[in-house]
Amino acid sequence: MIKVLFQGHWDRKGIDYLRDKLDPSLQLFTEEDSVDDFEILISGRPDEALLSRSSGIKVLIIPWAGLPESTAVLLKKHPAIHVHNIHHNAASASEMAIALMMAAARLLVPADRSLRNNDWTWRYNQDRAVLIERSRILILGYGHVGSRVGAVCRTMGADVTGIQRKPSGPASEEGVPLYSIDRLHELLEKTDILIVALPLTPDTRGIIGDRELDLLHDRSIVVNIGRGHLIDEESLYHHLRNNLIGAAGIDVWYEYPSGKETVSDTPPSSCPFGTLDNIVMSPHMGGAFNLEELERQRMVHLVQLLNLYAAGEPLPDRIDLYQGY
Amino acid sequence: MIKVLFQGHWDRKGIDYLRDKLDPSLQLFTEEDSVDDFEILISGRPDEALLSRSSGIKVLIIPWAGLPESTAVLLKKHPAIHVHNIHHNAASASEMAIALMMAAARLLVPADRSLRNNDWTWRYNQDRAVLIERSRILILGYGHVGSRVGAVCRTMGADVTGIQRKPSGPASEEGVPLYSIDRLHELLEKTDILIVALPLTPDTRGIIGDRELDLLHDRSIVVNIGRGHLIDEESLYHHLRNNLIGAAGIDVWYEYPSGKETVSDTPPSSCPFGTLDNIVMSPHMGGAFNLEELERQRMVHLVQLLNLYAAGEPLPDRIDLYQGY
Repeated sequence: MIKVLFQGHWDRKGIDYLRDKLDPSLQLFTEEDSVDDFEILISGRPDEALLSRSSGIKVLIIPWAGLPESTAVLLKKHPAIHVHNIHHNAASASEMAIALMMAAARLLVPADRSLRNNDWTWRYNQDRAVLIERSRILILGYGHVGSRVGAVCRTMGADVTGIQRKPSGPASEEGVPLYSIDRLHELLEKTDILIVALPLTPDTRGIIGDRELDLLHDRSIVVNIGRGHLIDEESLYHHLRNNLIGAAGIDVWYEYPSGKETVSDTPPSSCPFGTLDNIVMSPHMGGAFNLEELERQRMVHLVQLLNLYAAGEPLPDRIDLYQGY
Repeated sequence: MIKVLFQGHWDRKGIDYLRDKLDPSLQLFTEEDSVDDFEILISGRPDEALLSRSSGIKVLIIPWAGLPESTAVLLKKHPAIHVHNIHHNAASASEMAIALMMAAARLLVPADRSLRNNDWTWRYNQDRAVLIERSRILILGYGHVGSRVGAVCRTMGADVTGIQRKPSGPASEEGVPLYSIDRLHELLEKTDILIVALPLTPDTRGIIGDRELDLLHDRSIVVNIGRGHLIDEESLYHHLRNNLIGAAGIDVWYEYPSGKETVSDTPPSSCPFGTLDNIVMSPHMGGAFNLEELERQRMVHLVQLLNLYAAGEPLPDRIDLYQGY
């Protein structure tokens, strides 16, 4: 019997679903069971005390996409434990990227605001609208989310290029040419729409700054669905404010509410992005927090991973703690 | 030599492009040439005086999609003249439908408005968000625009069904089952997202009213990219206001500015849609009026049609004046 501990407070229905679908060789425990000697731990932010409860942990599954800094630090001290992500929200995040791209391309936010005031001016003001068809789209981070975004853009007739950590092997995937990050600058010069879908690591922080935004033309669109600090905050504001780029759709920010009491009063940036018409601002909704369908998908993905383990199969989406994803 | 008269005031660059690409057997004239005996007339709203200038008109090309009422009335008196549309803006209109669908599904408008005021509440309020993946999408009007919308939705993993005037021959197109309008009610009961992409004709006016909206569930999304009056105005307001449907994305309206002086002060409806959070309101931007790229595409499509005529080939997209499209 392989013991699995699922840490944290999860919906009872989800836990029941897991228990129902798990391979019989796996036994699932939650925190209230106070179990020890588990072989698999499902937890996003474990601490040393939790890890010390079992000497035989083989796998840590973070039940979402991403690696919290504290988890990276702790797990580097436990190199025998393999760390894995699940990507159950890749569909949701990629759909959010499409939503932001389309809204930015068609100036939906100011057009909606004006029409609510009976003002149709934006109808006659579409010389800055952007069509996806025939646009050149660069997806920085062609992974679980980026590849889905790419497929949708290609269906709309766009010319899609991807940047991947390891674009070795086939240099393209389903017709999308893939390059490594050292080609970023030359690709930006030929880009109409830039989609940033990278994880945030020491290597990727500020990967898009003044120099990169300068390479884009003044009607280009920038979408960030990764993490705020992938794009330099002041560079982005400066380029939008002065129409050096055309528009942006931004889901991820520079400041976040620290707790419930600050949810309704936390500026997402020290720059006044909220004064600009050429940005769509969403409050980190890519993961569709609290959406019941996604919670179900989380459990579906956990079952897949756990049952692969039970079958002795290799597990996908292992995290390199030093690369950060 | 076949004479072609292009009525109206068009960009010089576009006319030059046409002249450059036309088959040598065609000769293009504009209004300032005051030509008679033309065989092809390009005009959206001709009058009797214009038609009487040539006794040999074979084809009227309306240089956009749709049939103005006055043109229908006039051309019914000239049954020998075949009337054709071009669909150069199908990409733009379909992208607008996707933009509205995605913005409605992810509550982008109120989320953006709140975040500009430092309020992140919508991040924690996504239980009413809708994922396109696995959604059941019904496209009412599976034509030039609707089929493009369908392809994009399918790439996102949706289950797409279409309603067509004549779904005879193959009952599906690229995996999309196609039905005739008499199946509308039973299909609405199994629909999460309804996309209305019909032309407005006497038969389609008010095709979506109380009864049809009642068949949709209370998290469903309605998008209208066709014409306002396809959906009954008060029914739509009532269903949105009382959360009987989930959300709507509306590009086409019930009232329009009558001229330049009323552009900034014309309510799009007698119902106060602008007070609702669950609607995205765009001022008829599907055609991307004034977008240079689309003007270029208009000329590309005209060239195709004219050169087919020169080659003696049958012309696509003929309008049935009695059906209205």
